[in-house]
Amino acid sequence: METNRLNSQIEFIKEIDKLKYIQRKTKLFNSNRHENDAEHSWHLAMMAMILAEHSNEDIDILKVLKMLLIHDLVEIDAGDTFLYDTTKNHVNTDDELIAAKRIFGLLPEDQTQEYIQLWQEFEDGKTKESKFAKTMDRFEPILQNESNKGGTWTEFKVPYNKIIEKVKGIKLGSSIIWDYTLSILDNFRKNKIIND
Amino acid sequence: METNRLNSQIEFIKEIDKLKYIQRKTKLFNSNRHENDAEHSWHLAMMAMILAEHSNEDIDILKVLKMLLIHDLVEIDAGDTFLYDTTKNHVNTDDELIAAKRIFGLLPEDQTQEYIQLWQEFEDGKTKESKFAKTMDRFEPILQNESNKGGTWTEFKVPYNKIIEKVKGIKLGSSIIWDYTLSILDNFRKNKIIND
Repeated sequence: METNRLNSQIEFIKEIDKLKYIQRKTKLFNSNRHENDAEHSWHLAMMAMILAEHSNEDIDILKVLKMLLIHDLVEIDAGDTFLYDTTKNHVNTDDELIAAKRIFGLLPEDQTQEYIQLWQEFEDGKTKESKFAKTMDRFEPILQNESNKGGTWTEFKVPYNKIIEKVKGIKLGSSIIWDYTLSILDNFRKNKIIND
Repeated sequence: METNRLNSQIEFIKEIDKLKYIQRKTKLFNSNRHENDAEHSWHLAMMAMILAEHSNEDIDILKVLKMLLIHDLVEIDAGDTFLYDTTKNHVNTDDELIAAKRIFGLLPEDQTQEYIQLWQEFEDGKTKESKFAKTMDRFEPILQNESNKGGTWTEFKVPYNKIIEKVKGIKLGSSIIWDYTLSILDNFRKNKIIND
């Protein structure tokens, strides 16, 4: 029984290696190299650990870390949807749910349930932990784009108001990080790096 | 004050992006592509989350996750030391301590202390959390090498006894995972993929 559990868990551990091949649109800091989803997930977990004190509400940081570590696994099957994609909406698509069931389904039954639930909670973004986790997910590309002279905002000509609309959820997790985000965006707008 | 703390934390968050450029000797599963330290750290954290039940002792999993997420940051300055390197020993070298002080030193003072301590605890490997974290760190390349028909073991002609000597610490964190490791190594030895 122990052996069966371990075998299932190891199948899952092998499968998730594929996250390292999923490329994001955003690039590393001061770089022209695209970030992959495994690097991204690690960086978000680090950010959550370090920035937890700025959460609007007291949070269970273990839950936030688990969420962030797994939040993009569905992209192994469903692919990365760019935040500013105008043709496809990134809101818990059917494809992602099917992917979650397949990938977490490799685990023993109790863990399958636990992690599908955790992923769903992240996607729904209604609990305080998922709000803070989403704040990290939105904030990392802000810092990356800042370091890359506008990054994906300039590359895809995303206007100021569109950016605000897409990242304003940061405020729900941390008003302090939201103020910091606004200062970057307003400065870029003032310097015409992003347009209205 | 809040702003000063946040600024220091963001400096640290930018600096640790460099972990994504540190290449390990081991390669991704079924692959010829080297793994980098950020991907590796993410994968170990995932493994710890999923395999915690197999720890020899009850562990504080939050502590283990934090340890694993930060354990290789010193390599940004000190570089990766290959486990089977015959010229350089990977035991908390002076270079690594200097690196820890510089990198964690970017954080506010209380966090600097917290994370240097946590990194030191991992390196020392004496507590139950650090034993389990080290078990993950040793076990990932076992699985990778298994998937790559011997991987670094065959590439660098590492004999069976040398491998055992280097990875036997796995037993201290989990005797179940140690048994699994031995079954892989014994099978490889039997099939002459690794030699005595």
